[in-house]
Amino acid sequence: MTLLDKAKLAKQAAAQMVTLTTEEKNQALLAMADALENNMARILAANEKDIASAKEAGVTGALIDRLMLTEIRVHDMAEGLRQVVELPDPIGEVMDSWERPNGLRITKVRVPLGVIGMIYEARPNVTVDATGLCLKSGNAVILRGSSSALHSNRILVTILREALLSTRVPQEAVQLLEEGTREEVNQMLKMNDYLDVLIPRGGAGLIRSVVENASVPVLETGAGNCHIYVDESAKPDMTHAIVINAKTQRPAVCNAAETLLVHEAWAKKHLPALLSALKEKNVELRGCERVRELAKNVEIIPATEEDWRTEYLDYTMAITVVESVDSAIEHINRYSTKHSEAIITESEASARKFLTRVDSAAVYHNASTRFTDGFEFGFGAEIGISTQKLHARGPMGLPALTSSKYVIYGTGQIR
Amino acid sequence: MTLLDKAKLAKQAAAQMVTLTTEEKNQALLAMADALENNMARILAANEKDIASAKEAGVTGALIDRLMLTEIRVHDMAEGLRQVVELPDPIGEVMDSWERPNGLRITKVRVPLGVIGMIYEARPNVTVDATGLCLKSGNAVILRGSSSALHSNRILVTILREALLSTRVPQEAVQLLEEGTREEVNQMLKMNDYLDVLIPRGGAGLIRSVVENASVPVLETGAGNCHIYVDESAKPDMTHAIVINAKTQRPAVCNAAETLLVHEAWAKKHLPALLSALKEKNVELRGCERVRELAKNVEIIPATEEDWRTEYLDYTMAITVVESVDSAIEHINRYSTKHSEAIITESEASARKFLTRVDSAAVYHNASTRFTDGFEFGFGAEIGISTQKLHARGPMGLPALTSSKYVIYGTGQIR
Repeated sequence: MTLLDKAKLAKQAAAQMVTLTTEEKNQALLAMADALENNMARILAANEKDIASAKEAGVTGALIDRLMLTEIRVHDMAEGLRQVVELPDPIGEVMDSWERPNGLRITKVRVPLGVIGMIYEARPNVTVDATGLCLKSGNAVILRGSSSALHSNRILVTILREALLSTRVPQEAVQLLEEGTREEVNQMLKMNDYLDVLIPRGGAGLIRSVVENASVPVLETGAGNCHIYVDESAKPDMTHAIVINAKTQRPAVCNAAETLLVHEAWAKKHLPALLSALKEKNVELRGCERVRELAKNVEIIPATEEDWRTEYLDYTMAITVVESVDSAIEHINRYSTKHSEAIITESEASARKFLTRVDSAAVYHNASTRFTDGFEFGFGAEIGISTQKLHARGPMGLPALTSSKYVIYGTGQIR
Repeated sequence: MTLLDKAKLAKQAAAQMVTLTTEEKNQALLAMADALENNMARILAANEKDIASAKEAGVTGALIDRLMLTEIRVHDMAEGLRQVVELPDPIGEVMDSWERPNGLRITKVRVPLGVIGMIYEARPNVTVDATGLCLKSGNAVILRGSSSALHSNRILVTILREALLSTRVPQEAVQLLEEGTREEVNQMLKMNDYLDVLIPRGGAGLIRSVVENASVPVLETGAGNCHIYVDESAKPDMTHAIVINAKTQRPAVCNAAETLLVHEAWAKKHLPALLSALKEKNVELRGCERVRELAKNVEIIPATEEDWRTEYLDYTMAITVVESVDSAIEHINRYSTKHSEAIITESEASARKFLTRVDSAAVYHNASTRFTDGFEFGFGAEIGISTQKLHARGPMGLPALTSSKYVIYGTGQIR
């Protein structure tokens, strides 16, 4: 079946999805969860093929780990679907309602987006997670995973669709693209008549390519060049705890900190100790001239312009001394990817300035940037973290997968 | 100055705009309104040049009318700015706020989008209207009007910027592109580092070209292939009133009706009279085979596939007989531009089906489609009518020109 055929089927399915009740959608999610657990052997066997091909192609450890499914991971995917069942259904919510002087009653109601295109990389769990969130919010989904995970994705989608057969959710609401060609993605990016939104999830290269080439609206996710600014009045203990946590607790994720900005007065007194603490955690440090002067016995690689722009996703941190909160804000608004930034300060005035003027999805006062996450925010599962300003910003839960519609009740009104 | 220079200045201005109070923004709008009225002669003289060039180029009546400024129209633009002063300021609104078990206090606050790119056609009033709405919502704006209105736009922007000099709103928050080349637009469509959103306003060709070629997020506005479905139980009087109003009260606007679908049972009894009534209003009728059979003495041009897709914006209507509300819904979801559609019926069941399943920004029960409009909805001035599902749908008032941001208050929390 061609991509166009699949897109047409998805669009037809989306038209049916709007008529389903919460109960009917939840039953489908539970059936899918059970089906995954009841087909463990089929899933693991298919996944082994992907792992074998990847190893043959010389793929390295971290990528193999992302691709790998285990019994525990399959149970986790099923549990994830069951958690989505527990989330409130956003569809049908009356967001606003008012009456006009002419008697027209206008209501704004929440509706599904329609057909969502997911373009993602190796992790097969995205196949299940995204399907769960899209169906619960009344959407159809077209999945385009990495070709390296094709066997895994194919068996997962087959099992999910088998499970849907006994439910009111149409099978065709879940479509998997299997060609694995770049041409297939290019075609998907331009399907404005069939796709209501594209959500790319993966590395910066994938996301940039989708943003640059799509005519379908895109929800840009992910890239996080996150900053921590240590103000003059920051408490040293709190600063140590937050900086070490934001940099080293899980450096490969988008909400980990990449650049540290330190007020010059604080730096003179406390920076050497903080640098040593980072070094003890095996963080490679790249600093401006002034950081290098203050560093004493800690090795600091000279930072280049490139360092201020880089999302390392690793045990590396760029560090610079600034003369004021204003300079920090300017640096951040220049280099950040508008994901998450934190100020550590005891000054209310500095905090207010920073929180107002830093233009990012999440801005923190005295807390780690690592909290920008659907679960940490209390939303439950998320479809990604939006770094754009349109439609949704920050962690995207179910409401980000919805649109609205004006339903207007009249008694014959004309203009 | 190059486009890039202007974009940089706009971005810097946007960073200042977030710190302004409502009062400061309102003062700027009032100063701009006064300045327009105090510079009437300069404006009209510049506009005369555009009108003269257009006439020389052989431009026709309706386009000349769109381009033309008069004393009354300049006063109307000034009044429009004063009306925006009266609108509530969306910026700073706390949209949501909650505390997490770890003590983090998360607030979601409304913030400006940043820099808005407006791409529009001949009407010079858009220059003033869009600037007023963008500034009130804390944004900077880059205006790219039609080259046919360049003299008018240039004098309007000069006067608006002169007025800003005595206010706290930075002059550089309003930028006009003056090259008038296609290259300039193409460059604008790709300025993701400087523009947060593009809003095209004008004909279907302009909008399509922006949607297809922009990598900057787009708010798609306008095109309205609107439908009215007359159900079996529709009252004939109400139906006449609504159909005549939606088609003929102002046929050149996007919320005017273009296609009429009629249930076969109703058609047999009442369609001939409705066709005669439309004909009396000089509406050209294009019908399916069954409409032509029922028409008797009224001339009906055979409708082609193309007619179902066409937004005539004129005294022309496509008409088809359908066998059920389901067929009507299918036809509409296939051909409509997702703007505004109405059902006329006394059946609650048919209405519910139609309102739930028709996938458009505004769906009406027993009212004219002509109400899809910022003023008619009670929003005040609008920046356009969104026909996409992301970010904003239907008439877009000030909140559509905003984004949100999570501001998180901690006491040293780490993960």
